[in-house]
Amino acid sequence: MITATYHVVGMTCEHCVRAVQQEVGAIPTVSEVEVDLASGRVTVHSEQPLTDADFAAAIDEAGYEVGG
Amino acid sequence: MITATYHVVGMTCEHCVRAVQQEVGAIPTVSEVEVDLASGRVTVHSEQPLTDADFAAAIDEAGYEVGG
Repeated sequence: MITATYHVVGMTCEHCVRAVQQEVGAIPTVSEVEVDLASGRVTVHSEQPLTDADFAAAIDEAGYEVGG
Repeated sequence: MITATYHVVGMTCEHCVRAVQQEVGAIPTVSEVEVDLASGRVTVHSEQPLTDADFAAAIDEAGYEVGG
Protein backbone atom coordinates (compact mmCIF):
# COMPACT_ATOMS: atom_id res chain seq x y z
CA MET A 1 0.00 0.00 0.00
CA ILE A 2 1.30 3.44 -0.97
CA THR A 3 0.36 6.67 0.77
CA ALA A 4 0.79 10.04 -0.94
CA THR A 5 -0.18 13.49 0.24
CA TYR A 6 -1.27 16.38 -1.95
CA HIS A 7 -2.55 19.90 -1.49
CA VAL A 8 -5.80 20.85 -3.18
CA VAL A 9 -7.00 24.43 -3.58
CA GLY A 10 -10.59 25.62 -3.63
CA MET A 11 -12.48 23.22 -1.37
CA THR A 12 -14.82 25.22 0.84
CA CYS A 13 -17.28 22.78 2.38
CA GLU A 14 -18.16 19.16 3.01
CA HIS A 15 -19.75 18.91 -0.44
CA CYS A 16 -16.36 19.77 -1.91
CA VAL A 17 -14.70 17.14 0.27
CA ARG A 18 -17.14 14.51 -1.00
CA ALA A 19 -16.64 15.55 -4.63
CA VAL A 20 -12.86 15.14 -4.27
CA GLN A 21 -13.22 11.84 -2.44
CA GLN A 22 -15.51 10.49 -5.17
CA GLU A 23 -13.35 11.54 -8.11
CA VAL A 24 -10.03 10.45 -6.61
CA GLY A 25 -11.64 7.32 -5.18
CA ALA A 26 -12.78 6.37 -8.69
CA ILE A 27 -9.16 5.88 -9.79
CA PRO A 28 -8.91 2.05 -9.96
CA THR A 29 -5.85 1.57 -7.73
CA VAL A 30 -7.02 3.98 -5.02
CA SER A 31 -8.39 2.36 -1.89
CA GLU A 32 -8.92 5.33 0.43
CA VAL A 33 -8.99 9.13 0.21
CA GLU A 34 -8.76 11.31 3.31
CA VAL A 35 -9.43 15.03 3.02
CA ASP A 36 -8.69 17.72 5.57
CA LEU A 37 -10.87 20.63 4.53
CA ALA A 38 -9.17 23.27 6.68
CA SER A 39 -5.69 22.64 5.26
CA GLY A 40 -6.64 21.31 1.82
CA ARG A 41 -4.52 18.25 2.48
CA VAL A 42 -5.59 15.15 0.56
CA THR A 43 -4.06 11.82 1.58
CA VAL A 44 -4.42 8.99 -0.90
CA HIS A 45 -3.86 5.31 -0.20
CA SER A 46 -3.35 3.20 -3.30
CA GLU A 47 -2.13 -0.21 -4.33
CA GLN A 48 0.12 1.27 -7.03
CA PRO A 49 1.85 4.66 -7.18
CA LEU A 50 -0.49 7.34 -8.50
CA THR A 51 0.84 9.56 -11.28
CA ASP A 52 0.60 13.29 -10.69
CA ALA A 53 -1.31 13.52 -13.96
CA ASP A 54 -3.95 11.02 -12.82
CA PHE A 55 -4.38 12.81 -9.52
CA ALA A 56 -4.55 16.24 -11.18
CA ALA A 57 -7.10 14.97 -13.72
CA ALA A 58 -9.37 13.69 -10.94
CA ILE A 59 -9.08 16.95 -9.01
CA ASP A 60 -9.80 18.93 -12.17
CA GLU A 61 -12.84 16.74 -12.83
CA ALA A 62 -14.09 17.48 -9.31
CA GLY A 63 -13.69 21.19 -10.01
CA TYR A 64 -10.62 22.03 -7.95
CA GLU A 65 -6.88 22.55 -8.42
CA VAL A 66 -3.75 20.90 -7.17
CA GLY A 67 -1.78 23.60 -5.40
CA GLY A 68 1.63 24.13 -3.91
CA MET B 1 -47.20 33.42 -8.88
CA ILE B 2 -45.60 34.69 -5.67
CA THR B 3 -41.99 35.77 -5.34
CA ALA B 4 -40.26 35.93 -1.97
CA THR B 5 -36.66 36.71 -1.12
CA TYR B 6 -34.68 35.29 1.80
CA HIS B 7 -31.15 35.43 3.09
CA VAL B 8 -29.34 32.16 3.73
CA VAL B 9 -26.13 31.88 5.70
CA GLY B 10 -23.36 29.35 5.16
CA MET B 11 -23.38 28.63 1.44
CA THR B 12 -19.80 28.58 0.18
CA CYS B 13 -19.82 26.95 -3.25
CA GLU B 14 -21.91 25.77 -6.16
CA HIS B 15 -22.56 22.47 -4.39
CA CYS B 16 -24.20 24.45 -1.59
CA VAL B 17 -26.28 26.35 -4.14
CA ARG B 18 -27.51 23.08 -5.64
CA ALA B 19 -28.31 21.60 -2.22
CA VAL B 20 -30.45 24.64 -1.37
CA GLN B 21 -32.14 24.62 -4.78
CA GLN B 22 -32.98 20.94 -4.41
CA GLU B 23 -34.41 21.16 -0.90
CA VAL B 24 -36.41 24.34 -1.45
CA GLY B 25 -37.45 23.16 -4.91
CA ALA B 26 -38.87 20.00 -3.33
CA ILE B 27 -41.56 22.04 -1.54
CA PRO B 28 -44.67 21.20 -3.62
CA THR B 29 -45.82 24.74 -4.42
CA VAL B 30 -42.36 26.00 -5.37
CA SER B 31 -41.74 26.37 -9.08
CA GLU B 32 -38.30 28.03 -9.19
CA VAL B 33 -35.44 28.78 -6.81
CA GLU B 34 -32.73 31.29 -7.67
CA VAL B 35 -29.63 31.51 -5.50
CA ASP B 36 -27.00 34.24 -5.50
CA LEU B 37 -24.02 32.66 -3.80
CA ALA B 38 -22.09 35.87 -3.19
CA SER B 39 -24.89 37.60 -1.30
CA GLY B 40 -26.69 34.54 0.08
CA ARG B 41 -29.91 35.80 -1.45
CA VAL B 42 -32.44 33.10 -2.30
CA THR B 43 -35.41 34.07 -4.47
CA VAL B 44 -38.31 31.65 -4.47
CA HIS B 45 -41.17 31.60 -6.96
CA SER B 46 -44.21 29.67 -5.78
CA GLU B 47 -47.85 29.18 -6.61
CA GLN B 48 -48.90 29.72 -2.98
CA PRO B 49 -47.26 31.79 -0.25
CA LEU B 50 -44.48 29.88 1.47
CA THR B 51 -44.50 29.84 5.27
CA ASP B 52 -41.29 30.92 6.96
CA ALA B 53 -41.33 27.59 8.79
CA ASP B 54 -41.45 25.59 5.54
CA PHE B 55 -38.62 27.61 4.05
CA ALA B 56 -36.53 27.35 7.22
CA ALA B 57 -37.11 23.59 7.41
CA ALA B 58 -35.89 23.12 3.83
CA ILE B 59 -32.82 25.26 4.48
CA ASP B 60 -32.09 23.35 7.67
CA GLU B 61 -32.44 20.08 5.78
CA ALA B 62 -29.91 21.34 3.22
CA GLY B 63 -27.51 22.15 6.07
CA TYR B 64 -27.71 25.96 6.17
CA GLU B 65 -29.44 28.69 8.14
CA VAL B 66 -31.87 31.44 7.37
CA GLY B 67 -30.17 34.66 8.36
CA GLY B 68 -31.03 38.30 8.79
